[in-house]
Amino acid sequence: MASSTGDRSQAVRHGLRAKVLTLDGMNPRVRRVEYAVRGPIVQRALELEQELRQGVKKPFTEVIRANIGDAQAMGQRPITFLRQVLALCVNPDLLSSPNFPDDAKKRAERILQACGGHSLGAYSVSSGIQLIREDVARYIERRDGGIPADPNNVFLSTGASDAIVTVLKLLVAGEGHTRTGVLIPIPQYPLYSATLAELGAVQVDYYLDEERAWALDVAELHRALGQARDHCRPRALCVINPGNPTGQVQTRECIEAVIRFAFEERLFLLADEVYQDNVYAAGSQFHSFKKVLMEMGPPYAGQQELASFHSTSKGYMGECGFRGGYVEVVNMDAAVQQQMLKLMSVRLCPPVPGQALLDLVVSPPAPTDPSFAQFQAEKQAVLAELAAKAKLTEQVFNEAPGISCNPVQGAMYSFPRVQLPPRAVERAQELGLAPDMFFCLRLLEETGICVVPGSGFGQREGTYHFRMTILPPLEKLRLLLEKLSRFHAKFTLEYS
Amino acid sequence: MASSTGDRSQAVRHGLRAKVLTLDGMNPRVRRVEYAVRGPIVQRALELEQELRQGVKKPFTEVIRANIGDAQAMGQRPITFLRQVLALCVNPDLLSSPNFPDDAKKRAERILQACGGHSLGAYSVSSGIQLIREDVARYIERRDGGIPADPNNVFLSTGASDAIVTVLKLLVAGEGHTRTGVLIPIPQYPLYSATLAELGAVQVDYYLDEERAWALDVAELHRALGQARDHCRPRALCVINPGNPTGQVQTRECIEAVIRFAFEERLFLLADEVYQDNVYAAGSQFHSFKKVLMEMGPPYAGQQELASFHSTSKGYMGECGFRGGYVEVVNMDAAVQQQMLKLMSVRLCPPVPGQALLDLVVSPPAPTDPSFAQFQAEKQAVLAELAAKAKLTEQVFNEAPGISCNPVQGAMYSFPRVQLPPRAVERAQELGLAPDMFFCLRLLEETGICVVPGSGFGQREGTYHFRMTILPPLEKLRLLLEKLSRFHAKFTLEYS
Repeated sequence: MASSTGDRSQAVRHGLRAKVLTLDGMNPRVRRVEYAVRGPIVQRALELEQELRQGVKKPFTEVIRANIGDAQAMGQRPITFLRQVLALCVNPDLLSSPNFPDDAKKRAERILQACGGHSLGAYSVSSGIQLIREDVARYIERRDGGIPADPNNVFLSTGASDAIVTVLKLLVAGEGHTRTGVLIPIPQYPLYSATLAELGAVQVDYYLDEERAWALDVAELHRALGQARDHCRPRALCVINPGNPTGQVQTRECIEAVIRFAFEERLFLLADEVYQDNVYAAGSQFHSFKKVLMEMGPPYAGQQELASFHSTSKGYMGECGFRGGYVEVVNMDAAVQQQMLKLMSVRLCPPVPGQALLDLVVSPPAPTDPSFAQFQAEKQAVLAELAAKAKLTEQVFNEAPGISCNPVQGAMYSFPRVQLPPRAVERAQELGLAPDMFFCLRLLEETGICVVPGSGFGQREGTYHFRMTILPPLEKLRLLLEKLSRFHAKFTLEYS
Repeated sequence: MASSTGDRSQAVRHGLRAKVLTLDGMNPRVRRVEYAVRGPIVQRALELEQELRQGVKKPFTEVIRANIGDAQAMGQRPITFLRQVLALCVNPDLLSSPNFPDDAKKRAERILQACGGHSLGAYSVSSGIQLIREDVARYIERRDGGIPADPNNVFLSTGASDAIVTVLKLLVAGEGHTRTGVLIPIPQYPLYSATLAELGAVQVDYYLDEERAWALDVAELHRALGQARDHCRPRALCVINPGNPTGQVQTRECIEAVIRFAFEERLFLLADEVYQDNVYAAGSQFHSFKKVLMEMGPPYAGQQELASFHSTSKGYMGECGFRGGYVEVVNMDAAVQQQMLKLMSVRLCPPVPGQALLDLVVSPPAPTDPSFAQFQAEKQAVLAELAAKAKLTEQVFNEAPGISCNPVQGAMYSFPRVQLPPRAVERAQELGLAPDMFFCLRLLEETGICVVPGSGFGQREGTYHFRMTILPPLEKLRLLLEKLSRFHAKFTLEYS
């Protein structure tokens, strides 16, 4: 028995000693995790906001947080009906108040009835309140033109992120050459790269085609898969549609090709569809992977394993803070599905207010309900403004020399490519920064505009991008786009 | 490049094939995860509830869920003030309503002011809303008699569970003999064993002393540590105080001895203190590890690494569904603390309604506030009833032959030891069940009472227990305790 008490007591009597938990001794996988959306540039933005509050003079009066898809933080108002029902659920004493529409009261009573102790304060079962899982299944059926959805295949989650991480956890096994590989798009939403790093899985990059509006090309999937099989065991393919950060909306043909590829190459499919309500471009249409898979019929419909994810954080509701979401699994092995439920149970349950909110999102007021008109008007207004802002962003950026921006077909972001002069690239390297990080930090310091460098999402070697949300109010967005374009021109001059 | 497209296409044309993700091929660590509190017995309870709803005749009319510490599911009413302020935050239009006390409106406005876009729907920073972190620090200082607490060392979380898992993740490193070992109490709350299994850490059991009211004995810590050092690298010690499932409240002397042990043996300390408001026994008093550590002075106060956890799920509020909680870290390496924040940022932020609720729990109405009297009355009523139920449980069980129950000094559970006849043990083994699982399943089928077998929490070889909450209403609890005692007598007779 290796006893170390002796010599350490001696050390104890002589003051300080090394920490038990140090950077070198901590979990190496956690150290490899990176998450650019809240990385160094956001920390600097927080500091600048603090300095502004303390009255420090800056070349700007406010930090504009265009780094994260948080509509309400940028001023979008919550949908009235959602918050009326939630307030009734949180404080049932209000059910006797005359100041709420009848349908809101009925919805609150229905949700409370399904809660333990008729209260949002009780835990739910780990997969989520059964009534709400059933409403999610009905939503999926309506969305997919009547294709059946089984509530037992629906699992509510703490935002979509939680469910994505849970499914990825199930897949990671093997060592060395048999270690699980997961194909992810580049550029990607860095939850994927961060989770694969934390789980010690092998990240297999497939590149979206910037020249073809970030299209997904099956030939590129074959290339990535072939190379990966030399050093790991690829078992899953992640797709983000509509794309984050790239904003593309995949065609039906593309989705069919991806499903055939996944089936033939024996890959579990994860379809991140949290922006399914956010489709703006003419000719673009959201097709759920579930619908396309089922309509493809055998051998795919009954065998291809698929997990598709949705959230209350995006769409027209933008209720990020409530952390609501779900995953629907299709063709999953029943025993594995039981293991997934067991894993979820360790965290007890998703936040119940977020579950209640999800219920209202998947079963909104019907045309005959008193709240329908206001709900529809508020929903359409949000989506119409987002569509206008998507168009404006593409337009202004494409008018700026040295900036090119693919159409923002959907989601909430633009991912323009930005030309950076060689001398700026050298300066960045001297500072140990990625060139587009250097550009974004300078942009932040000089204009207060906080965007996330493309290097945080992945990009082709030698290209530079940044992700900017389309969420600021329209006129503010116009000023911001023009200010950013002017900064880029000045920056380019400075390093020419 | 290992191409497998050829032969698989051939298989594809001939119908079914093996799943990509199977039990054998899934993450082996996830398979080893067990979480008894929501394990097989709870699945059976759900089925029985379903059958009762469908009118199936049972020897009972309702399933009594005494398996989980969920006060509101068992009928406890939410604290009025908490739900008034939350409703105002969820639906700020109510701020103009005359039906809310002024202090509730002020609190709601203060919280909304600190939210992005002045809305619960915005994300917060990953460590939680700064204002609320500051209020938590003030709460800790008041709790600990003025000992300073730094808001930058406070991280809000999705229930305490989320923070416990995050800290354990930081600690797990090494391979084989250098693999991180974590000391956990037996009996323990199975979040710990489940998380260590999922992370692939080595679980190092130290036994609480049932003969001495589940006391924690440093000699037992030395025994467990010494044995563990033969096959792993122990780096952390978890303590649950007040105890779950065992209900003991540690003495100050015991806490000091544990801190000295942890310091001398270079162990990071995790103190799960979610039941700090739930102390009932005369002579028992909650001492926070933070307070004792700081009052011990050098070398401990400035060097012993400690993470202590709290939650909105227990105490007098029982707001499990909101998933609110925090961790305070002390003496943590600054670079490691940054890595922890980065890891938290990947999940964006804890649910904001849960953060708002936590703010009300850590800074309740002041004596001069209009809501103070009602708040205090409701809080005291809950705690007084819990104390009475703790006493009643210990009493009734100790009157039953073959059942012995240590005093429920704190928390929300009794963990009585139950004598099971040898023939019952044999029958259980024939069925492939742990003997106390067999007892609990029979209890459930014949009485509808759902408790969790001791084997799900860990216990000394050859002893049998079950965990039962003290949460049903007092009179219902009395009937339940008597019904359970009668069942045990009948069961004992059947297998004598």
